[in-house]
Amino acid sequence: MGVLYTENGQLLPPNSDIVTGHSAISAFWQGAMDMGIKTAKLETVELEGQGDTAFEVGKYTLGGEGGKVIDSGKFIVVWRTEGEKWRLHRDIWNSSLPAPG
Amino acid sequence: MGVLYTENGQLLPPNSDIVTGHSAISAFWQGAMDMGIKTAKLETVELEGQGDTAFEVGKYTLGGEGGKVIDSGKFIVVWRTEGEKWRLHRDIWNSSLPAPG
Repeated sequence: MGVLYTENGQLLPPNSDIVTGHSAISAFWQGAMDMGIKTAKLETVELEGQGDTAFEVGKYTLGGEGGKVIDSGKFIVVWRTEGEKWRLHRDIWNSSLPAPG
Repeated sequence: MGVLYTENGQLLPPNSDIVTGHSAISAFWQGAMDMGIKTAKLETVELEGQGDTAFEVGKYTLGGEGGKVIDSGKFIVVWRTEGEKWRLHRDIWNSSLPAPG
């Protein structure tokens, strides 16, 4: 997963500090899968670019064992070209479900 | 608050659907203040622009009565010029504190 991000790419996950760089990003997503996330449905709501940068607004749904919805919410990704390929540069999201507890 | 955003500006708040437009955005922030938020400290970590669009990565700390920290986290704002003024166009954030419950 990490290689889909720019060299100094960053995740800004809920309930976490900022996660920077390929190996830390890969470890983060591996951890998410280890916690039982089986599927991620991503829907682009808006995508606008200028030059080497674009921003995307989207919605996500995370599925677990047996198709159970674990979470659904929204994200903003700042995309950037690196070596002529578009890569995720900044990636932030949050849940649209009610807060637990 | 709403007028600081573009005409079709959007908040993407945690545990909420997307909030669109000046009056809904003003109502959202009024609600936040009514819930006891007294201060918001914002720190820009990164700000990059191209043409009429810029993205900002930052950190926030929300304070309540007596200087108590209610929340701290991070945000991405997509800024856009509208009528020669920079306005918030897309605004998403999440907490860096552990999840409740």
